Amino acid sequence: MSATVHHPNARAVARRMAVIDLGSNSFRLVVFSVGEAGWWKRTDELSESVRLGGDLGPGGELSPARMAHALETLRVFAAFCATNGIHSDQIEAVATSAVRDAPNGDEFVQRARRATGLPIRVLSQRDEAWFSYVAAVNQTTLRDGIVLDIGGGSLELVAVQERRARECASWPLGAVRMTDRFLAGDGPADPAAITALREHTLARLAEAPWVGDAGRDHLVGIGGAARNLATAAIRAAGLPLDSVQGFVLEPAALDALIDELAARPPSERERISGIKRGRAEVILAGAVVLRTVLEATGAPGIEVVEAGLREGLFLAGELADEELPLLEDVRHASVENLARQHGVDLVHAEHIAELADQLAGELPAVGLPAPGEPELLEAAAILHDVGMAVDYDDHHKHSSYLILGSGLPGFTPREVALVALMARYHRKGTPQLGAAAALCRDGDEQLLLRGAALLRLAEQLERNRDQAVHTARLRRDGDGVALELDADRDAVVAAWAARRQGDLFERAFGAPLTVVHR
Amino acid sequence: MSATVHHPNARAVARRMAVIDLGSNSFRLVVFSVGEAGWWKRTDELSESVRLGGDLGPGGELSPARMAHALETLRVFAAFCATNGIHSDQIEAVATSAVRDAPNGDEFVQRARRATGLPIRVLSQRDEAWFSYVAAVNQTTLRDGIVLDIGGGSLELVAVQERRARECASWPLGAVRMTDRFLAGDGPADPAAITALREHTLARLAEAPWVGDAGRDHLVGIGGAARNLATAAIRAAGLPLDSVQGFVLEPAALDALIDELAARPPSERERISGIKRGRAEVILAGAVVLRTVLEATGAPGIEVVEAGLREGLFLAGELADEELPLLEDVRHASVENLARQHGVDLVHAEHIAELADQLAGELPAVGLPAPGEPELLEAAAILHDVGMAVDYDDHHKHSSYLILGSGLPGFTPREVALVALMARYHRKGTPQLGAAAALCRDGDEQLLLRGAALLRLAEQLERNRDQAVHTARLRRDGDGVALELDADRDAVVAAWAARRQGDLFERAFGAPLTVVHR
Repeated sequence: MSATVHHPNARAVARRMAVIDLGSNSFRLVVFSVGEAGWWKRTDELSESVRLGGDLGPGGELSPARMAHALETLRVFAAFCATNGIHSDQIEAVATSAVRDAPNGDEFVQRARRATGLPIRVLSQRDEAWFSYVAAVNQTTLRDGIVLDIGGGSLELVAVQERRARECASWPLGAVRMTDRFLAGDGPADPAAITALREHTLARLAEAPWVGDAGRDHLVGIGGAARNLATAAIRAAGLPLDSVQGFVLEPAALDALIDELAARPPSERERISGIKRGRAEVILAGAVVLRTVLEATGAPGIEVVEAGLREGLFLAGELADEELPLLEDVRHASVENLARQHGVDLVHAEHIAELADQLAGELPAVGLPAPGEPELLEAAAILHDVGMAVDYDDHHKHSSYLILGSGLPGFTPREVALVALMARYHRKGTPQLGAAAALCRDGDEQLLLRGAALLRLAEQLERNRDQAVHTARLRRDGDGVALELDADRDAVVAAWAARRQGDLFERAFGAPLTVVHR
Repeated sequence: MSATVHHPNARAVARRMAVIDLGSNSFRLVVFSVGEAGWWKRTDELSESVRLGGDLGPGGELSPARMAHALETLRVFAAFCATNGIHSDQIEAVATSAVRDAPNGDEFVQRARRATGLPIRVLSQRDEAWFSYVAAVNQTTLRDGIVLDIGGGSLELVAVQERRARECASWPLGAVRMTDRFLAGDGPADPAAITALREHTLARLAEAPWVGDAGRDHLVGIGGAARNLATAAIRAAGLPLDSVQGFVLEPAALDALIDELAARPPSERERISGIKRGRAEVILAGAVVLRTVLEATGAPGIEVVEAGLREGLFLAGELADEELPLLEDVRHASVENLARQHGVDLVHAEHIAELADQLAGELPAVGLPAPGEPELLEAAAILHDVGMAVDYDDHHKHSSYLILGSGLPGFTPREVALVALMARYHRKGTPQLGAAAALCRDGDEQLLLRGAALLRLAEQLERNRDQAVHTARLRRDGDGVALELDADRDAVVAAWAARRQGDLFERAFGAPLTVVHR
């Protein structure tokens, strides 16, 4: 049988892991699956807004009503795991700040263990910060900067140098806790209360003198509050983004959101586009704390990632055999993860990437400009056919849809949009930025046009999916350019296909293309 | 291992078939794949605008230049099949009107066979009409009416009664041929030429006296010209449709397109939104012939299908063991095909369909209105999670995307939109028609709201994916409704999940819901 018929079982699941996060705001069960084909992704999720960190007793005790709600929720999670064949050794159940800091936290955990059999453990501040760091550093290109995680109970900061965690600090500055302490009223927020929260936060941050230096250039934010605020900022700016992955939340946008949130009573805050109902009551406190971290570090913004503590726990498990739990190349891992999830024929796709790269490398010698940013062309080449998993018809559009939806951790929203558009235009149509122009910068339309032209040509050279064409050379031929194919065997399909696709090359590079099949 | 881990290899291909269509306008190689999981779909396609039926000699001979182009194209197709492991016995290569009617057609076929080894055969008029009929009757709910297929060379009509082909006729009224004869000029079309083409067509149609009777109620149109005109009509009306499947091309829309096409020279016709470049020169003739068939039958419109002769050849092969090559239930087959393509757990999905149907059946007894059109709710229940194949996050949106993209043959565009929207709102959000309102009618917002509410509830009852809840009953409980669950085992997850989703039920039916777990 030939390569086109060989479809490894892209959906087969090799193993699963359930992470149960007993957060101060919500409890969540997330199932991660690892495919036989080498991908990983979230495959199920249950959540309940327990808000265990709220309504604490005079000595900071967990409230009986919320503990009862918490236990009922954990019973449901345990039943779900049991029925779905997820055993104790596949479950990471962790409690964070709310439980850690309450005098009756241990008692609660013991009751919960007895009632559910779940292997619940309480994360130390240091562990919590560590797993946040693992998530952030494996889902961004962060080398030097600070990872910030704000939950319902606590705020953790981790200073990162050369991708390694160097310092870490944690404070009880979480959104639920700060709401109870500073912003508990039913009406619009009192400006004095916001100032008090800001000053309180600044005072605590001053305890870690490394914060200003380490965070100046790159601040990565994880946690539900950061994600939710990013969503609201994206909506407010009208940006064409479905995912917050890689979005940079800037001080001005955060200020505008704080003003808008503060002007409404808590019950009205969920009406702001993007703000989630289960978070509306505590999001203002989270926003003020985040804004204060920006102020203290002087960073230009907070790069938000979709992943969080739960992904950190999962990835730390997956990478446990490494010296440090670091993916070698986050961008490459993202591209390959998406490709493997959807059963891309990587031999075929990587051959197209190689041919596109050859063509890009040949351009200067014939006096034509290369597209620039070769990693984008490579990613587009690997992923151009990922949409075949949806349907053959319009698969270029489906590829774009899947790429945009995945967010490709490690790439910026602009880069993801360009990769998606190169894939979108790999078969037909005239490349244009369209709505993505709002994410792009000068020259990107050219970059897209040139990248799409090379990808389209490279795909034609491998139209037969047989890797017969191994070398593509360009040479000047009068006013035009001749494309010479070196092939291991008859490349009649490649030559036929390439001859039909010279139009875009001419449009992109201003030179007519002829195809020479030797 | 439990049901959630068991993913049959949804992508594994059991067998493939290549259909090569030597049409009068274009040559096309289409690869159909049949999955081990029971689905079928197109998985590859090569095409070339050969236009073998044009530029005929004085005695109707195929032109030497076009024959040379045709042979070169067939060599490429043969090389593609050889490299991709598609052997002669998996290839159906058929020539139609252009070759059949040319005095040198046989000679061409012999040369082509010798040069390529492809098992080319010439379809008789009757065979061609038969395969068009097979495609149409298996991709629509046509029972009584006419199947119309217009190609580059010929027009075929097949009268259908009780899904069986009863009469058939074929005329050399194809778009390429009629362009050469009536509309060959370079400028805007001469109104007299259009009238002449109409009268010529009417005169030929009069040879089949059954046309008027058989086609009065239901006319199904297949072929590239019908598809392309439908696309242009959809664009002109600004309808939110990506697929022409099931769209009804009405006389007024066709008249408007004819006027717009006729007013431009052929070289400008591709600028009309939706008109394809390779077809722009001959589409006016096709439009006039189609319009004349509408006139002769008195049908309210032409229901356009994506499938054509090529799908007919494939399906006839697949259904060869049946007494007649008829899918028993086209709608059900479409839903199941899409579900199987994307690895839907059918045991889980069908259980949800069953629970949703139970709930709908219980409504009248508690004085509440059922949603109506139960087939739509059933389809949405089977397909609600199909988007999990894209990603867990936002899988409700992905389900909608996949359903809309598939076109679900057998359902109308309105019905497909409603099925997609029920799936779209099966987890969260307030159901609304949005852009689909343009396809819908009065009462559809209610139908959607009620359908989505039942689906959402039914999915919660099966949230644990274990089919534990086997019966869902409703009874009046004061002003509200109590939902009683009968389960084989502990249904703590189902009860927890259902309790969280009463909001939409109350919105849809005006009665608060309580969940009773016995």
